[in-house]
Amino acid sequence: MIIMKTDATQEQIAEVVKEIKKCGLRADVSQGKYRTVIGLVGDETKIPFAHFAVLPGVKEAMMVETPYKLISREYSKFSEGEGEGLVVKVGNIEIGGDVPIFIAGPCAVESKEQLFKIAEEVKKAGAHILRGGVFKPRSSVHSFQGLGAAGWEEAEKALDWLREAGKRFKLPVVTEIRGEAQVDLAAKYADMLQIGARNMYNQDLLSKVAKKNKPVLFKRHFGAGIEEFLSFAEYIAVEGNKNIVLCERGILPLGKGKNYTRYTLDLAAVPTIQKETYLPVIVDPSHGTGRRDLIFNMSCAAIAAGASGLMIEAHYNPAEALVDAQQAITPDELKETIDACQRIHKLIASERNEKG
Amino acid sequence: MIIMKTDATQEQIAEVVKEIKKCGLRADVSQGKYRTVIGLVGDETKIPFAHFAVLPGVKEAMMVETPYKLISREYSKFSEGEGEGLVVKVGNIEIGGDVPIFIAGPCAVESKEQLFKIAEEVKKAGAHILRGGVFKPRSSVHSFQGLGAAGWEEAEKALDWLREAGKRFKLPVVTEIRGEAQVDLAAKYADMLQIGARNMYNQDLLSKVAKKNKPVLFKRHFGAGIEEFLSFAEYIAVEGNKNIVLCERGILPLGKGKNYTRYTLDLAAVPTIQKETYLPVIVDPSHGTGRRDLIFNMSCAAIAAGASGLMIEAHYNPAEALVDAQQAITPDELKETIDACQRIHKLIASERNEKG
Amino acid sequence: MIIMKTDATQEQIAEVVKEIKKCGLRADVSQGKYRTVIGLVGDETKIPFAHFAVLPGVKEAMMVETPYKLISREYSKFSEGEGEGLVVKVGNIEIGGDVPIFIAGPCAVESKEQLFKIAEEVKKAGAHILRGGVFKPRSSVHSFQGLGAAGWEEAEKALDWLREAGKRFKLPVVTEIRGEAQVDLAAKYADMLQIGARNMYNQDLLSKVAKKNKPVLFKRHFGAGIEEFLSFAEYIAVEGNKNIVLCERGILPLGKGKNYTRYTLDLAAVPTIQKETYLPVIVDPSHGTGRRDLIFNMSCAAIAAGASGLMIEAHYNPAEALVDAQQAITPDELKETIDACQRIHKLIASERNEKG
Amino acid sequence: MIIMKTDATQEQIAEVVKEIKKCGLRADVSQGKYRTVIGLVGDETKIPFAHFAVLPGVKEAMMVETPYKLISREYSKFSEGEGEGLVVKVGNIEIGGDVPIFIAGPCAVESKEQLFKIAEEVKKAGAHILRGGVFKPRSSVHSFQGLGAAGWEEAEKALDWLREAGKRFKLPVVTEIRGEAQVDLAAKYADMLQIGARNMYNQDLLSKVAKKNKPVLFKRHFGAGIEEFLSFAEYIAVEGNKNIVLCERGILPLGKGKNYTRYTLDLAAVPTIQKETYLPVIVDPSHGTGRRDLIFNMSCAAIAAGASGLMIEAHYNPAEALVDAQQAITPDELKETIDACQRIHKLIASERNEKG
Repeated sequence: MIIMKTDATQEQIAEVVKEIKKCGLRADVSQGKYRTVIGLVGDETKIPFAHFAVLPGVKEAMMVETPYKLISREYSKFSEGEGEGLVVKVGNIEIGGDVPIFIAGPCAVESKEQLFKIAEEVKKAGAHILRGGVFKPRSSVHSFQGLGAAGWEEAEKALDWLREAGKRFKLPVVTEIRGEAQVDLAAKYADMLQIGARNMYNQDLLSKVAKKNKPVLFKRHFGAGIEEFLSFAEYIAVEGNKNIVLCERGILPLGKGKNYTRYTLDLAAVPTIQKETYLPVIVDPSHGTGRRDLIFNMSCAAIAAGASGLMIEAHYNPAEALVDAQQAITPDELKETIDACQRIHKLIASERNEKG
Repeated sequence: MIIMKTDATQEQIAEVVKEIKKCGLRADVSQGKYRTVIGLVGDETKIPFAHFAVLPGVKEAMMVETPYKLISREYSKFSEGEGEGLVVKVGNIEIGGDVPIFIAGPCAVESKEQLFKIAEEVKKAGAHILRGGVFKPRSSVHSFQGLGAAGWEEAEKALDWLREAGKRFKLPVVTEIRGEAQVDLAAKYADMLQIGARNMYNQDLLSKVAKKNKPVLFKRHFGAGIEEFLSFAEYIAVEGNKNIVLCERGILPLGKGKNYTRYTLDLAAVPTIQKETYLPVIVDPSHGTGRRDLIFNMSCAAIAAGASGLMIEAHYNPAEALVDAQQAITPDELKETIDACQRIHKLIASERNEKG
Repeated sequence: MIIMKTDATQEQIAEVVKEIKKCGLRADVSQGKYRTVIGLVGDETKIPFAHFAVLPGVKEAMMVETPYKLISREYSKFSEGEGEGLVVKVGNIEIGGDVPIFIAGPCAVESKEQLFKIAEEVKKAGAHILRGGVFKPRSSVHSFQGLGAAGWEEAEKALDWLREAGKRFKLPVVTEIRGEAQVDLAAKYADMLQIGARNMYNQDLLSKVAKKNKPVLFKRHFGAGIEEFLSFAEYIAVEGNKNIVLCERGILPLGKGKNYTRYTLDLAAVPTIQKETYLPVIVDPSHGTGRRDLIFNMSCAAIAAGASGLMIEAHYNPAEALVDAQQAITPDELKETIDACQRIHKLIASERNEKG
Repeated sequence: MIIMKTDATQEQIAEVVKEIKKCGLRADVSQGKYRTVIGLVGDETKIPFAHFAVLPGVKEAMMVETPYKLISREYSKFSEGEGEGLVVKVGNIEIGGDVPIFIAGPCAVESKEQLFKIAEEVKKAGAHILRGGVFKPRSSVHSFQGLGAAGWEEAEKALDWLREAGKRFKLPVVTEIRGEAQVDLAAKYADMLQIGARNMYNQDLLSKVAKKNKPVLFKRHFGAGIEEFLSFAEYIAVEGNKNIVLCERGILPLGKGKNYTRYTLDLAAVPTIQKETYLPVIVDPSHGTGRRDLIFNMSCAAIAAGASGLMIEAHYNPAEALVDAQQAITPDELKETIDACQRIHKLIASERNEKG
């Protein structure tokens, strides 16, 4: 990491970048509120830091050995100041700002009617962003894989409905990209691109999605530790795209006998990640529990743990949903959940203000 | 399970119990608000339910095949009514009642001074019950094992301090029992007996502790699923002691690389267990995270998830603690945490009242 | 699953396939030693089995509800006979046949010299197939990602070395494909295409690789259960490519404190998978343990558990390797390992013959 | 650890022990083939090693900070020599010696007839030690808990059968102790005392069993890492009893969907533990898989991995067994398994001799 002086010139910055490239690494230039910091993409042991420390405009040159540097608190501290978190804009919605953001919608887009009806209802319930899957990752190849499975034309039609529904009800939209071939198409229609848990380790997909320069919703794999999760988020950041929203969605349950939940929602991941990185973190209680009757409690808990928002599956008639019917809630339940979460968020924010 | 008629006589109940014993099983008689229900301890396949169904005073006789029957919602439904939870009294404190209960104190009792100082401070901070370990389970035999390790006399002295501190500051006290030989002694001094996570599977200890007829604080093992946890709680219940408070304290973390927390706090266990059983559930964020800087967030989250209380390690000078120094918080931090939790609890209770 | 009569004609088979397509499903026609069986790709609840049962040439029509049908023992039983396992040919090497197969080579291709030297030595040691990674999946974006990271030209050069080395030393070659964009290129050079553990859930990659109609080496994700692993192998099979070799390479370790191995090698997965499917199973003790001093023992154990082969990282100077230096063994150690494994295999085969 | 000179006198050793006690620690005196080594039980930071280094007869004094010292390779290296493993004698049987040892018998003792019949058959099949449970740990309090559950008299009767059966068929016997109250009784009848997986963390039981000075069969908990497992074995060793046989019996399975085995048998634990400690390690494939059809393969694999023996549940009619019927094998299957294992052991031993 090369920390520039506050009065470093563009020429001096460019010079440092040139020197970094000579060493065979890439440079990540982050011009912050306070100063410019230049991150190094690659193996830092190849960098002669002593040499860099005396280049014009350089304040300090130091090795950072964690697998995630560009998204670390450490990195933003010098450019943006201690404790500052990133606000990711999705359309006119700010994730990581003053209020919690609610992403809601059906698990899978099934028809125009289904989507528009749900979009209207989640908007009324207070949601800010519309979700809807066109390319569904499934454990069984014999299950419904989303409308996208029927061909590119059908996929585009479904994505178009999503965009339309978003416009009609003033909701930016997010959709999952499951494979590299879907990136260009999905990026044309969605305001935010989701990488699902099963693709957390798919570094080629991460790089390709990152390059679209749209905000990325990045979900933790259910077998991944926090360090691993952040190390893969770094694959997005090194492409110059730091508009990353991290999402905790449950890890593998442990123990013998019945578990009663599909996954173990790891809510301590929220404050833990916030201490490690400046990126906003949200929680998906729908996948995280797999049970609609736990959504209210776990949503409240997630917000109380400090989450910047939630992603919730909602359906006007959950039993009818083609995918994950047992975990979707109704618009009425969604409204109750959003209301309670907003009050908890406000209460904790005021506690924190008193404290701090 | 044998459900008696609301007007069944004591003689009829006694008759059913006699018949159960004849089949080689034990009977658990639960006289509730609505009616008496008789649970069967043992292998129900040996019971001729048709025969029992026609005994005088019997309303219904049915097989219940889960490994936890006596603590199940199903069981209490008939005697106490749908949705009623058990309130466990520890001294004059009610766990599972209208307000969340905070158990706080040092990890280990180290000296009279240390204990009294902490007791005074946690009382001021708003705690309801004092905790303090005399017999400490430790991963290494070479580590400090609590004052109890120095001999029975020293153990009794430390337990006596605990009782005294409790009296002085009007705090009922809870202490952990690690082995069978400690049961009689600890039960003389403590208001509530704790079985730690490492002893969750120790069924001989469970039975012996249960028989003391004091409220039991029963912690989930870090490798146990919910069904297993409840199955072992049943070992306490079959001894006729249902004053059991269940405690979630984190399960084994998953994944490669650094995890940053000692365990994964499974907050969804709270509402899940509440749906399976009528026993109150509390959360231990100190062991659950192993990090003092996460206690505030995770305490708020636990209460928001529906917990009936929290167990928190507190110390006037955490760095000085002989055991688990990195996870204890100061009395000031404890106060802030308790205050925030109480407000969240009140807020959610009022949400629920509006809803329901 | 539609089981045809032994004397069913091609026309009758074609008719059944047509009917299946009418129902919106795909057909997998498997013409075996005994008879033709037609598998159904998709949601079988849409199939009127009674109607199919009476079509000309049909012996039986039945629903199979597991997520893996086309690779199941059940499926091959009718066409190939009870207990028959698939032999997958890679060049002139047979995996799943009478002798265990050893795949060896460097973790990553680093230079032509390194590769040729290792190829020569593993051949001498008794290996049958040469491995070498050009596109390396890595937890940190800042680590060496294989020569493929330098651009398509460099990737092709490295793949060409691999093919050349294979020809020179008469070793078919296998290489990992990490992303969809690499499929066409890698398939031009390699005899067998590997999908790594991190991509087990990457169904779009699976489908694309499958279509190349080359044998696929498919590794289990370190967080996946057996049913899940097989369900994803089915994504390859439904593309008509059943030349799949399954590979156990270790799952996430559990427990607190030091684990001493990188993963937990799940050797019971070998016979378990063999009972569920007819595909051959091999084991990778290098990744499975992450320790070169355990390779000999765990290789012997894998073969004793019934594995059809092993995949082992070897290097003439392990300490020099750019990736996974701590788990590679020397050619001499490889030879000892192969020798011991072959004797164990022979011994157990003769035990089995006596038995059966 | 205090390493004495080879010619140190008993007085010099006694002097060192006295000095250790003065520091508040306990001393473990290990008089080996080469020299005497004195281990320190407790917190070594309290020891002034410089002072000890110059005491008469002392060769070296050094701090050992691992949680397991007295059972470590390091410790035995100085007294017994590099690479020497401990041979634990159970009656006239040697575990850890030149041949693999087979412990077999029913899961639970059910009757004298059942036990004697099985004892006779496992003897014929080649087993060396007879197992049989009188105090059964069970997940459900409503399941059969062994004959010991019926009272002390019945327990003693069953233990007496076990001893008698052992004598009749010349098989030393091992039985599980589940609670502290059972230690004295069981130690009167059994040649070897077993601590089951669920009690691995039960340090009070460990200490009490250790003091009986009989060989201890110590099983790994299904959620414990290797370091943890060895740390708890140290609780036995510090009581002066190092006749400990460690047993791997499977850890919690991971992943979604069906797992097909009850646990994941961690065979790499065998060589890993052998590198950390000088204690013999055996494997229990019956509990480790929970499937009788996998016992043959996993037994062979365990021996190939280097295990010093196996513990296998056998029954003349597995389906009849009151506990764990699905995992017991018949005497014929036991014989086949033992035969194959012995040949594999011999083969690998000769490979090793050639190698070394």
